[in-house]
Amino acid sequence: MTITDNLILLFTETRQYTETLCKPLELEDYVIQPELDVSPPKWHLGHTTWFYEEFILKHHKPNYKLFHKDFAFAFNSYYEGIGKRIVRSARGNMSRPSVAHVYDYRHYVTNELKDLLKGNISEEIKNLLLMGVHHEKQHQELLMTDIKFILGNNPFQPKYNDTFIENTIEDIEQKWISIEEGIYEIGHENPKTFHYDNEVNRHKVYLHNYAISNKLVTNGEYLNFINAGGYKDFNFWHMEGWEWVKQQQPNHPMYWHNVDDKWHHYTLQGLQALDMDAPVKHISYFEAFAYAQWSGFRLPTEFEWEAANTKFKWGQRWEWTESAYLPYPNYKKAEGAIGEYNGKFMVNQKVLRGGSVVTPVNHTRPTYRNFFHAQLRWQFTGIRLAK
Amino acid sequence: MTITDNLILLFTETRQYTETLCKPLELEDYVIQPELDVSPPKWHLGHTTWFYEEFILKHHKPNYKLFHKDFAFAFNSYYEGIGKRIVRSARGNMSRPSVAHVYDYRHYVTNELKDLLKGNISEEIKNLLLMGVHHEKQHQELLMTDIKFILGNNPFQPKYNDTFIENTIEDIEQKWISIEEGIYEIGHENPKTFHYDNEVNRHKVYLHNYAISNKLVTNGEYLNFINAGGYKDFNFWHMEGWEWVKQQQPNHPMYWHNVDDKWHHYTLQGLQALDMDAPVKHISYFEAFAYAQWSGFRLPTEFEWEAANTKFKWGQRWEWTESAYLPYPNYKKAEGAIGEYNGKFMVNQKVLRGGSVVTPVNHTRPTYRNFFHAQLRWQFTGIRLAK
Amino acid sequence: MTITDNLILLFTETRQYTETLCKPLELEDYVIQPELDVSPPKWHLGHTTWFYEEFILKHHKPNYKLFHKDFAFAFNSYYEGIGKRIVRSARGNMSRPSVAHVYDYRHYVTNELKDLLKGNISEEIKNLLLMGVHHEKQHQELLMTDIKFILGNNPFQPKYNDTFIENTIEDIEQKWISIEEGIYEIGHENPKTFHYDNEVNRHKVYLHNYAISNKLVTNGEYLNFINAGGYKDFNFWHMEGWEWVKQQQPNHPMYWHNVDDKWHHYTLQGLQALDMDAPVKHISYFEAFAYAQWSGFRLPTEFEWEAANTKFKWGQRWEWTESAYLPYPNYKKAEGAIGEYNGKFMVNQKVLRGGSVVTPVNHTRPTYRNFFHAQLRWQFTGIRLAK
Amino acid sequence: MTITDNLILLFTETRQYTETLCKPLELEDYVIQPELDVSPPKWHLGHTTWFYEEFILKHHKPNYKLFHKDFAFAFNSYYEGIGKRIVRSARGNMSRPSVAHVYDYRHYVTNELKDLLKGNISEEIKNLLLMGVHHEKQHQELLMTDIKFILGNNPFQPKYNDTFIENTIEDIEQKWISIEEGIYEIGHENPKTFHYDNEVNRHKVYLHNYAISNKLVTNGEYLNFINAGGYKDFNFWHMEGWEWVKQQQPNHPMYWHNVDDKWHHYTLQGLQALDMDAPVKHISYFEAFAYAQWSGFRLPTEFEWEAANTKFKWGQRWEWTESAYLPYPNYKKAEGAIGEYNGKFMVNQKVLRGGSVVTPVNHTRPTYRNFFHAQLRWQFTGIRLAK
Repeated sequence: MTITDNLILLFTETRQYTETLCKPLELEDYVIQPELDVSPPKWHLGHTTWFYEEFILKHHKPNYKLFHKDFAFAFNSYYEGIGKRIVRSARGNMSRPSVAHVYDYRHYVTNELKDLLKGNISEEIKNLLLMGVHHEKQHQELLMTDIKFILGNNPFQPKYNDTFIENTIEDIEQKWISIEEGIYEIGHENPKTFHYDNEVNRHKVYLHNYAISNKLVTNGEYLNFINAGGYKDFNFWHMEGWEWVKQQQPNHPMYWHNVDDKWHHYTLQGLQALDMDAPVKHISYFEAFAYAQWSGFRLPTEFEWEAANTKFKWGQRWEWTESAYLPYPNYKKAEGAIGEYNGKFMVNQKVLRGGSVVTPVNHTRPTYRNFFHAQLRWQFTGIRLAK
Repeated sequence: MTITDNLILLFTETRQYTETLCKPLELEDYVIQPELDVSPPKWHLGHTTWFYEEFILKHHKPNYKLFHKDFAFAFNSYYEGIGKRIVRSARGNMSRPSVAHVYDYRHYVTNELKDLLKGNISEEIKNLLLMGVHHEKQHQELLMTDIKFILGNNPFQPKYNDTFIENTIEDIEQKWISIEEGIYEIGHENPKTFHYDNEVNRHKVYLHNYAISNKLVTNGEYLNFINAGGYKDFNFWHMEGWEWVKQQQPNHPMYWHNVDDKWHHYTLQGLQALDMDAPVKHISYFEAFAYAQWSGFRLPTEFEWEAANTKFKWGQRWEWTESAYLPYPNYKKAEGAIGEYNGKFMVNQKVLRGGSVVTPVNHTRPTYRNFFHAQLRWQFTGIRLAK
Repeated sequence: MTITDNLILLFTETRQYTETLCKPLELEDYVIQPELDVSPPKWHLGHTTWFYEEFILKHHKPNYKLFHKDFAFAFNSYYEGIGKRIVRSARGNMSRPSVAHVYDYRHYVTNELKDLLKGNISEEIKNLLLMGVHHEKQHQELLMTDIKFILGNNPFQPKYNDTFIENTIEDIEQKWISIEEGIYEIGHENPKTFHYDNEVNRHKVYLHNYAISNKLVTNGEYLNFINAGGYKDFNFWHMEGWEWVKQQQPNHPMYWHNVDDKWHHYTLQGLQALDMDAPVKHISYFEAFAYAQWSGFRLPTEFEWEAANTKFKWGQRWEWTESAYLPYPNYKKAEGAIGEYNGKFMVNQKVLRGGSVVTPVNHTRPTYRNFFHAQLRWQFTGIRLAK
Repeated sequence: MTITDNLILLFTETRQYTETLCKPLELEDYVIQPELDVSPPKWHLGHTTWFYEEFILKHHKPNYKLFHKDFAFAFNSYYEGIGKRIVRSARGNMSRPSVAHVYDYRHYVTNELKDLLKGNISEEIKNLLLMGVHHEKQHQELLMTDIKFILGNNPFQPKYNDTFIENTIEDIEQKWISIEEGIYEIGHENPKTFHYDNEVNRHKVYLHNYAISNKLVTNGEYLNFINAGGYKDFNFWHMEGWEWVKQQQPNHPMYWHNVDDKWHHYTLQGLQALDMDAPVKHISYFEAFAYAQWSGFRLPTEFEWEAANTKFKWGQRWEWTESAYLPYPNYKKAEGAIGEYNGKFMVNQKVLRGGSVVTPVNHTRPTYRNFFHAQLRWQFTGIRLAK
């Protein structure tokens, strides 16, 4: 297969996979937005489609006819450069376009793109397409997270399906991996393989001696923290974390339920008994930090994580780091609206490294930098300690 | 037909009519709650059903089996006496129960009730059933109002259908109907025909000389108020009304749109040119009052309205009155949860009299007291002047 | 003395009395605004002064020179007709003008007015002056209420002085005063004696048989309501009242403190043991209504109160009525900014009748209509029952 | 002089200097809190005093008698370990203790400490005292910033005095100072001289080639940014910065006023014409970043700043850096409540380096790390560019 064939295949599979993920949903599940940070599945379907239409078809396909003149308003996420858009909080207020209409939109744009790809396409279009595919994979992850929120916060707690596995026990003894002091190279190496602008430039950092755990913190360990009064002692928390505790009154990770004095958690397979040996998930940075303080250790920086990442297994949980989300040296954001992808979020967010059970195949890599606000818990976040 | 036959017919027709009203909807339209005061149509379907289950079947049908143990949580509106319920603002966060499941619930309860009605039934049950039917009719009105909000605030402004008529011109000359000073009897007369507890006791009020208009204020007249700067001059407004204007910045009634310098309004038939001779609608009490101040007249009290109501036509718009919603002399609220129907709202609300184009047949009457907060506009509200 | 001499004396005494009320304050007490509804004493001193300057001196004294061009901005309360003003919530953010500067302002305006009064003055000026004096008396009451709030909510709970008596026991047996059905005349009788525009026109109302208590509800009686779980049973409350209870979590009237299991209340003489026989005070309308519901009685309407007022003693507490604050028949607000005094508040407020221990002499009368929002408690409010 | 003599002198001078700073105030200025982040001067006077009482006298002076048992409640800032405290937003709601009472408190504690220092004192006490002195110096800076806010936001814009100089022109040509790539040592060097826990451990960082400006950005340069539409183009802003712009609608730095089409700014000497050559001040991090984006350069990291700091003059403005406020390697917070001084703020804040015109003598140093939230502007903040 040529590179273009590969790309077409990747594109086709990605488009299909998004729809596969939605198969278990009821139509009603596509529509709602129970919290500001959660988008309706319908919106993800439309938004990932709009991305190709806006950045590729509109500019690069001769005589391309927009599917609907107002869909950009409905499906633009945060690109100020492109025009007005619906406010984020109102995504769940729109019953129209209907789900069927959005699927029509998907198929129209997929076909138009396939049509475009039949001809000779420039490097620029290839890059935009690859960007679009990775953008859609990123939304596949968000889609699963949002679906979990939509179902898991419903009073009836319906399951997504019977097969999705969220938790795999790391059946090894906890050990500390020691890393020696010195200069390390951080960031994406190969300018030709896909990466986001926030992963470069590759640059040197000086790391002091440290050790990092070979294992994620487990539910059982986290429960010890709870039982030791971790949510009641301000000493373990940042001031803003403590404000969050006083206001939100969390006593446990998101999706945990105490039923008849036994701990359960809601998973995509429905409510299940909590497995003490599985890695804890759905905790905020505030909680991850407080747990680390209580345990006497700390969270690694994103550089420590990256420098050591080949020495442990990762990929089940997005792992909170101590690092703030900031540009690498000589960071340059892309021209035009694509430049809004990463740079404008580089304040007041924490970096997560790794990937999770809902991260699509080939979407994450050792240099991948995810980022969230410190209080968010709806992702499959976890804790790896350092010292 | 016997009284019971009549009642069964009324019940059956009412149940059917609610579903008929929903026919033009897409399934997605049933689910959302774009504003706190708007409930998802699915919720209305479930809530009106729950009312019969909770107040009749559960207590009066031997061996009645609840359709679902958690539906009371989902479909209780505000009855504190009955148990926990979902917070009002979260009605649109529930994708489950699905619409199909709610229709199953409806048909189950309808059939169980019909089954109950086959036997000899007590006066108490008859009264409760009549209450349930009127409760459902009231929700038919709310349902239509909420459907209009859901569709009319969607950026795509889909229409409900092609036939629903919201506006009928009152093709008569405006005149003042004079009413003489004296004692008038106010409130529901016949204790045996259906009425709410807030319409009795029938009692005497002393009215001074006044005159009331034979006609509602029209769109054209209201536009004069707008063009005269009505929304910009504090003198016409209550202090709270003026705060509302400064905060919400309304410049015109709800659903009005200025398209290419011509006034249109969204109706259940879609966006239409504004008919200047049709009665204005979707205005708040604050606006109704301000209009009256500007015009040099005033709003009638609910007593003035009732005393004169046979002398003009009404029923197109709920008409704001100057009266606050308060109990009549010797008002007694019903025992138990049914007692929460009216009395607990008797503070900080204004009385509306009349009825509207979405009020079901036989639901309103000259003594009917509707009530809303002063800033609400999503109802088909209008203005009748007095002096 | 001539009428003018009397007026000058009244004016002089009123100006003096406001300052006398402030004597016990520390300078720091003049400055703060611990809650939106509480104004700094300094502001009351300035605002009552500005009222004379704005409505009399500026327009009626030849060559009058404003004391300071920006004082209108600082001391206008809510008169939209007069120009920009500081937002209410920012009154406590202004350390300048200093207290001394405000006293200078007072004395300047007082002297300028006395100077004006030396000449022949028109009826219009006399009326405006009388209005200004009554306006200042009204603020004397608010001043005392605000001083109590400022001191009573301070963690050190300083007393105002050693002599101010807030509570007098009504040493009589509770009895019901029966009033016969019929037409009663309501509102201020004599157009020549001072009254506000909201007290006229005198008009007829029809009252049905009722009875009203000769005595206010006592602390002991109110404590029975508390001990019976009055704040925990939604049945006694309006829906909005119950929301208020859930949000604010009041368990007792304002200023009550449970010290070592004994009830105390903060008074202008400092913290004191609660006298069970004294009339309860500092309760909201929501609480007054809930108490009445619990007791099996109700609150009187303002008309019932006025029709019966000669048959009981009143004046210790402002008494919540069931009436909403609405215009009397043929109500006309005054021309110009003075017209903003009353009319624009006639929505969403409840009428109080009577007067209180901080109402200045000759300020209240049987037709006087005070009004507050249903949740407010900082006034010396009380409960008189009817049935 | 012995070390202890020196310390006593330092202590005495610091205590005196705080009071000297307050000399120009009216008593009313001590009391108010016009914004959450601004504390009343009276509170600073009490809080700096309480710090010595709580951390030294209470534990280390035999038979020490608290000045007042409730002052800890009033003057604790954020030390959770010490007991309940007044909520921050209510500091301006307390008219008592009076200013005079707070001064008495100051003098009592100052004298008690002097008395303690007459004897032999341990190293621990010396360290605590030094900590207390530096804590008070830090509050001297905040005091001046808060005084500027209190006076500068008053509608009368009173000046602080006639002599305080906020702005000194850097009368040099703008040049770029180049720094070579390599390993640099960062953090406080000498464990024996005073520093905060957040300045250590001294550690290595790898810096890539960069250049830093020898000069701060001027008012004139910043005005070019404004005139070029800097506040209207989202491209220059972080997403959160842009939200801030849309919500707060800033068009210029804090304290700028456009009077008759000429730019002025409020300074401690009152309103003055804007000097275009003086360094810009009172800008948020969001604005500093946007300015840098617009100019084509960037902000330095705190490490770049520290590594280059000997090559330029600094001390007029706190300089925003691109660095988030995070712990240095092997950071250890102090034991007990003193440990709450720095560590618990290490999330969602940006580091500022340098010092400002209101920073007391000997309070800042090249390793000093100040920190604020990205939107704050009330400090004397400025911009130094890097590339």
